[in-house]
This record gives sequence, C-alpha cells and structure tokens, in this order.
Amino acid sequence: MSEVFADRRGRLRDRCAASGSAAALVSRPANVRYLAGGAPPGAVLLLGAGDDALLCPRTPTGDPVEGRLDERLRLVVLPGAGTDPAVAAVDLARGQGADVLAVEEHHLSVARHRAMGSAAPQVRLADLGTAVEQERIVKDEDEITCLRIAAEITDQALGELLESILVGRTERHLALELERRLVDHGADGPAFATSVATGPNAGRGGHRPSDRRVEEGDFLSVCLGANYRGYRCEIGRTFVIGTSPADWQIELYDLVFAAQRAARESLSPGRAYGDVDRAARQILEGAGYGECVAPVLGHGVGLEIEEDPQLAPGAMGKLDACVPVTVEPGVHLPGRGGVRIDDTLVVRQEADGGPELLTITTKELLAL
Amino acid sequence: MSEVFADRRGRLRDRCAASGSAAALVSRPANVRYLAGGAPPGAVLLLGAGDDALLCPRTPTGDPVEGRLDERLRLVVLPGAGTDPAVAAVDLARGQGADVLAVEEHHLSVARHRAMGSAAPQVRLADLGTAVEQERIVKDEDEITCLRIAAEITDQALGELLESILVGRTERHLALELERRLVDHGADGPAFATSVATGPNAGRGGHRPSDRRVEEGDFLSVCLGANYRGYRCEIGRTFVIGTSPADWQIELYDLVFAAQRAARESLSPGRAYGDVDRAARQILEGAGYGECVAPVLGHGVGLEIEEDPQLAPGAMGKLDACVPVTVEPGVHLPGRGGVRIDDTLVVRQEADGGPELLTITTKELLAL
Repeated sequence: MSEVFADRRGRLRDRCAASGSAAALVSRPANVRYLAGGAPPGAVLLLGAGDDALLCPRTPTGDPVEGRLDERLRLVVLPGAGTDPAVAAVDLARGQGADVLAVEEHHLSVARHRAMGSAAPQVRLADLGTAVEQERIVKDEDEITCLRIAAEITDQALGELLESILVGRTERHLALELERRLVDHGADGPAFATSVATGPNAGRGGHRPSDRRVEEGDFLSVCLGANYRGYRCEIGRTFVIGTSPADWQIELYDLVFAAQRAARESLSPGRAYGDVDRAARQILEGAGYGECVAPVLGHGVGLEIEEDPQLAPGAMGKLDACVPVTVEPGVHLPGRGGVRIDDTLVVRQEADGGPELLTITTKELLAL
Repeated sequence: MSEVFADRRGRLRDRCAASGSAAALVSRPANVRYLAGGAPPGAVLLLGAGDDALLCPRTPTGDPVEGRLDERLRLVVLPGAGTDPAVAAVDLARGQGADVLAVEEHHLSVARHRAMGSAAPQVRLADLGTAVEQERIVKDEDEITCLRIAAEITDQALGELLESILVGRTERHLALELERRLVDHGADGPAFATSVATGPNAGRGGHRPSDRRVEEGDFLSVCLGANYRGYRCEIGRTFVIGTSPADWQIELYDLVFAAQRAARESLSPGRAYGDVDRAARQILEGAGYGECVAPVLGHGVGLEIEEDPQLAPGAMGKLDACVPVTVEPGVHLPGRGGVRIDDTLVVRQEADGGPELLTITTKELLAL
C-alpha cells in the first residue's frame, strides 16, 4: 500500500511544479490522510524539494502520537504542545530552499496563514486550491473495496434492526443501537451521526434523533453508514410501522422511489452532475412537491461523508467512472412526515455493467 | 434564558465598539452557540449597528434549518445551498452602513476571508481575535448547572460499567457501552470520543479503543464525559483487573493520585495556570517520571471539551472563580501501561468551600 501514497504525493508534486510551486503544504485532515496513509489529529504534510514530511503535534494531554508512514515519508513530532505544525512546516520548507509554498487557503485560517508568513517572510505563500480534493474524486479499486465493505457492514446493521421490535422505542435509542451494530460488524465507527426520524420527523434530511417514540402508522426513516478504514458510505431507507400503510404513504413512497431510480439510472461516465439531480427532481416537481425537495440530491463519498461532486441544480462538471456518489432524494411534508431513499453507488461504464449499487438493502416499502 | 444571550451579545458589542469596530462577525460554532443560544451547522452571527442576525445556510441535503432565537435576534435563512453565510453577512453589514467588521481570523479560512473582502470591498475587515473565547472562560451558574448534570450522568454511566463483567471484553465494546449508558441517563451524546485503554495501553491520553480484550492483571483506564445541553465534562479513572494489584501498580497509582490531589488542592482564584500544572508535575518529576508526563495537565471545559485556560508549564494567566477545569495527570510507561486520573472541577473562593468537584466517582484504586 505504501506505493499508493507515494504515487499520490508524486502526482501532487508534479501538479504543483507545473504551476510554479516547488513545495506544498497540505493541512486539511482528509487530504493529509489521503496522501500520507494515516495521520494523527492536527498533522500537516509538507511536500517539497527534499523528503516529504508529516509534521505532528504532541497531543495536548497525551503521549507523542505515532503516524503510519511509508518509507519515503519522514515523521516529525514537534516538541511542544503549542507549536503549530503549519508554522514549523514553512520553516522547514525555507530550510530546504523553497521560495514558494502552495497552501490550502480554503482550510488554513487567516491567523495561521499570517503566522506562517511571519515565521518565514522569504517564502511566498501561494494557493494550492482544492487540488487534493479534485484528485480524491475518482477512487482506485482499493478505495472502492473499503467502501464496499463499509456498505456491507451498514446493510447488516440495518437488517438486524428491522428484525427487532420498533414500536415504543425512541429515535435516540434506535440510532444508538444502529451505531453499536455498525461497530459490532467491524466498522471503525459510524460514518456520520445516525439519523432516525419517526412520524412527522420522517423524511427530514439530517434530522437529529429525539425522544419521540415509534408509533403505529408512522413513517420511519433512517440514515446511517459505516466508516471502514476511513471510508464512509451512506444508506437511507423509509419504512411504515404497522400492518398496512395508508394510501398517501404508498403514493408518496412510490413517487420518491421513482425519482431515486431515475437518478440512479442516469449515473454514467460523462453525465453532467446537474443532469443526475434533474432526473430525480423533475419527477418530484412534476408531482407538485418542488418546494419540499432538498437543494442537493446526492454527493460524493470517500474519506469524508460529503465530498465532491455535488449532485445539485447548479453543479458544474461531469461524472467519471469510479466515482462513488449518494443518490438521496426525499420529500418531507411539514407536520405529516415524509420519505427519503438513499443509496451509495459507484459510477461504472456501461460495458462494466453500469452503476454499481453498494447498499443493497431492499427498497420495497416494508411494513414493520 | 433569552436575556442571557442578549446580554452576552451586548458585552461583545461594547467590546468591539471600544476597539473601533461597530460590527462583528462570529463564525466559530461554539462561539455562535454561546451568543445565540443555539445554532444550526454553518450558521454565523452578525452583531451590528442594526438588529443582530443569525445567518443560516440551507443544509445541502435537508430542509431549511431552524434556529432557537430570542426576540432581539433575527434569523436569516439563505436561499441557496452554495451561499457562504459569512459572505452574506458582510454584505448585510455593508447595507447597515458598517465600515469596519471585526471577524474571527483564527477561525475564518483565507479563502472565505478573501471572498468577504471581494463581496464588500468598502468594509474593512479587522480582527476580533479570541474575544468570545475569553468571555466564555468564566461560567454563569446556569452553565455550571449544565456541567454539574453532565458530570452526574457521567458518574452514573461509569458506575454501572464497574458493576459488569469486564474480563474478555474489548476496549471498543466497553467504550460503546459507556456511550450508550451516557445517552440512557440523559446525555445529548458523548462529550468526546470515549477512551478505554487496557494493559499496555492504559494511561495513554487520548488512546483510541482497539480490539484488545481486558485481561487479568491489567490496568484499565477509561476517559469519558457527557454532553448535556452543549456543555461537556470529563472524567478519567484507572482500575486494576483481578483480585489484587501488583506492587508496581499500587506505587504508580498512589503517585499519580498524589499528583492529581496536589493540583486539585491548588485550584483557587488568582492562582497562576502554570502553578496548578507545577503542583502535579513536580511530584511526578520528583519520582523520575518527567519524560512520561503529558505536556498539558488540565484545561477548561464548557461548550467545547478543550477550552481556555490550558494548565501547562508555559501557560500565562490566572484562574478566576467559576472557571471549570479538568485536572488530569497521568503516567504511561511504554510497554507496561500506566495510570491517569481526571476530574472536572469548578474553581471557587475559599469562603465558598474551595474547588467544587463535579465528577465524584471514587478515586480509590478499585480491583475489579
């Protein structure tokens, strides 16, 4: 695996060199992890003329941290708890003779940026922009394997929950139980805060679990995902509690299902991000629910649960093969509840079988 | 309660006015929450010549968010998912006639800061610094009540764990069980990632739970805390597994206990931060463990689990009454394990009974 990280760093160095910076400082945590293979909190990565270096703080109340390193990457643990690794890095870059250092201006605070400038005024700070985020969009097969395992764990956790008694339990407890089951099945943790929404809360994106208890006749929507070796997937399903759903519940479910299927089927290399969104959105708008639809209908996943691309009306760009995305339309009717259906898929060429569905829990409307 | 938040905002406005800025933009999430009483992710707070305004993004995949507001605070939900609330805020400030806007340069990224400058070049951006963080150090009695409840919940969760069978269970499962119990007892969630460390891991600050199982003869150290209405406390205890601890375990425990007690007893208004650290550190150094001690022996707690002040050798400043802090010395012997004892206390005047211990679980060396 260590070759992978060295290769990624090599590509970034080439990209920097082409734009006039011999050295680059990566500070955004997921970007550091992507390029170093693992990094303790607060670590920054210096790619320079010399050896690449991972600069780590001592944790304020802990032992010196240890990073996983490959042979081309040097670990530098800073002596004091108060030393900013970014400031130490610009100093190291200056020592290596760098005159321009590209930094992540979308991540570094104004105060840190200024402290770096003061520490080494000889070094001009340029902007690396989102170069690393752009590299991260297309995944290699090892990354997709991690996502596939994350999805398997997620399906298992959700499947077990569906076999248990739900009526009378609170949203909060159901969310905790799902998170425990994720870890039981091998997740490093939840990929994001698990959402369980019942009754009038159902179908609300990002609903925070409350003390409301599951009741007969409720819609129940859940959204969860496992973090496996840093890779995060997402699944969302909506169920009905009780013997038979009401007519309005069946109609709303069928509508959202149709919208979600249309967006899934539109996933292919070369397809514009906005087209995927439109495939789902026009079905929901056509049924008169335009006002109840979220502004973004899907997004990339990987080392972060929300990555590029965004599948939204204004989004610029086109899908590539090997890009994992969520497709998650939903409709929430204030006071009544709603439906959200969410899958993680990998964009694949038609010749490779088309979009690969990672989250395989059924999307039939189950009455639990 | 709404008066409280309006008063806090009034103090900050006065402070800004005194330093030449009629308007201020608060973007750091815990600071926004402190001043607004609650805020959705990504919200920023504009304190200006006109009404104060809480500017909230629409969540990328959700419904428009709702903030808890008091009557003097206006809620502005931005129309698009892509609008940066900080950019919208500088535009609003300009519209209200502000010519200087103080911003949190330690929080705002270089890219956001530049976007604000471009959106309203007529408005000069000044630095608010850590003005809000400084205001947050001394807590009012309502805040301390939240911390006290958080500590009660934490003690309950830990107490229940001690009554269960531990041998053979993994660090990871014990940590999850503790987090479930925190929520069972009314926590909004864990205050931070629960740490459970066994055998050679015991006593390491910030140890991430692994699949190692508890064995007879182990040291077992746990560190956990509840989040109650946003307020976060912390407790750390070390136990021995089995019938009787080894001599080296008793000696190490007694030493860390003595160091922790010395630091606790040194907590009083007017005492220098560094003195508290030194009270514990000199005992550990005197026993020859100087190299094994963490660089910071305690810190403030509140809306964040690590707040000012830092109790560390170089820290400048003195304690005030009503400042809640942790006192958490530990010694970790590589390969053997170690001891960490951690309490949350509130600094109080001698006449008020001296430091108030919030986390009351026994600090006897229990053999479990």
